[in-house]
Amino acid sequence: MTETAVQDRYPDAVSHCYGCGRLNPDGLHIRSFRDGDEAVCHFQPRPYHIAIPGFVYGGLIASLIDCHAMGTAAAAALAGAPADDESPRFVTASLKVDYLRPTPLGPLLELRGRVVELTARKAVVSVTVTVDGAVTARGEVVAVRMPDDWQPTA
Amino acid sequence: MTETAVQDRYPDAVSHCYGCGRLNPDGLHIRSFRDGDEAVCHFQPRPYHIAIPGFVYGGLIASLIDCHAMGTAAAAALAGAPADDESPRFVTASLKVDYLRPTPLGPLLELRGRVVELTARKAVVSVTVTVDGAVTARGEVVAVRMPDDWQPTA
Repeated sequence: MTETAVQDRYPDAVSHCYGCGRLNPDGLHIRSFRDGDEAVCHFQPRPYHIAIPGFVYGGLIASLIDCHAMGTAAAAALAGAPADDESPRFVTASLKVDYLRPTPLGPLLELRGRVVELTARKAVVSVTVTVDGAVTARGEVVAVRMPDDWQPTA
Repeated sequence: MTETAVQDRYPDAVSHCYGCGRLNPDGLHIRSFRDGDEAVCHFQPRPYHIAIPGFVYGGLIASLIDCHAMGTAAAAALAGAPADDESPRFVTASLKVDYLRPTPLGPLLELRGRVVELTARKAVVSVTVTVDGAVTARGEVVAVRMPDDWQPTA
C-alpha cells in the first residue's frame, strides 16, 4: 500500500471536496491508497452517521464509494508517474450502489476499488464496502477525467 | 403540498437517519412533502458541501435523492390514510444517480420524486434535482418496505 493518499496529490484548486478534499475543514477526509491493482480506503463513520439505529447511513456509503472511486481512477491514471507528480482529477458521471445488507455502525469500514475500464477520458470503477469480513454494499461508478486546464468558476 | 413532512410521521424508533431523521441533531433534516402525484423536497446546501469550488458535492446529491426517494415511497404508501397515522418506513435496496451537469452551490435545490412502481413490498422511485429551472441530476431508487414489527438491534 502506498504511503501517500491519492487525494494528497490532487491540485490545491480542486481539493475542497466535502468527501475527500484535504482543504475542506468540515469534510469527511476520505483517503485512498494504491494497493496492487486496487485502491483501498478505511473510514470510521461518526456515531451520528445513522440510517436506522445500529446501522450506517446509506448516503454516507454512497459518498464513500463516490470519492474512493474517483481516487481509484486517479491512482490508475497515475500508475508509473513520478511520485511528486500531481494527480489528474476525475468527476462523477454516474453512481450506482447496491445495498446488499445493513452495514453495522461501529466497526471500521474497508472500501476496495478496482478500475474495470480505463480510457483517456473516463474510467469505470467497481467498489466493495466490507465490514468485519462481510461485503455489505457494492458500487459501480463512471468517472470522467477533468481537463487539466479546467478552472473553478465559483 | 401537504403541510406535514412525511418524515414527521415516521415512528420515533426509526427517525434517527442522518439524512432525514428529525431525532438526529447532527443530521441534514431532509423533508419531503406530498404534492399531487409527486413528492417535493427543498434543500439548501451548506457552504462546505463542495465538490469542486462553486458546485455541490455529489455525495450530498446522492444522499438527498436517497432520503427523498424513501419519503416519496412512504407518501405513496400513506395515500388515503388518516392524517395522524404513522408512516411506513422504507429502506434503500439500490440507488442510481446520473450527474447530468454540475450543480451550482448557492441556490436552493428542488427535488421531485415520483413512484414508478409500487407493490406491497417495494417501490421504485424516480427523482430529479433541479436548480434555477435546470435539471442537474436524476436518480432511480429501489425502496423496500420495512416490516412494521422490525426493531432496531443496536
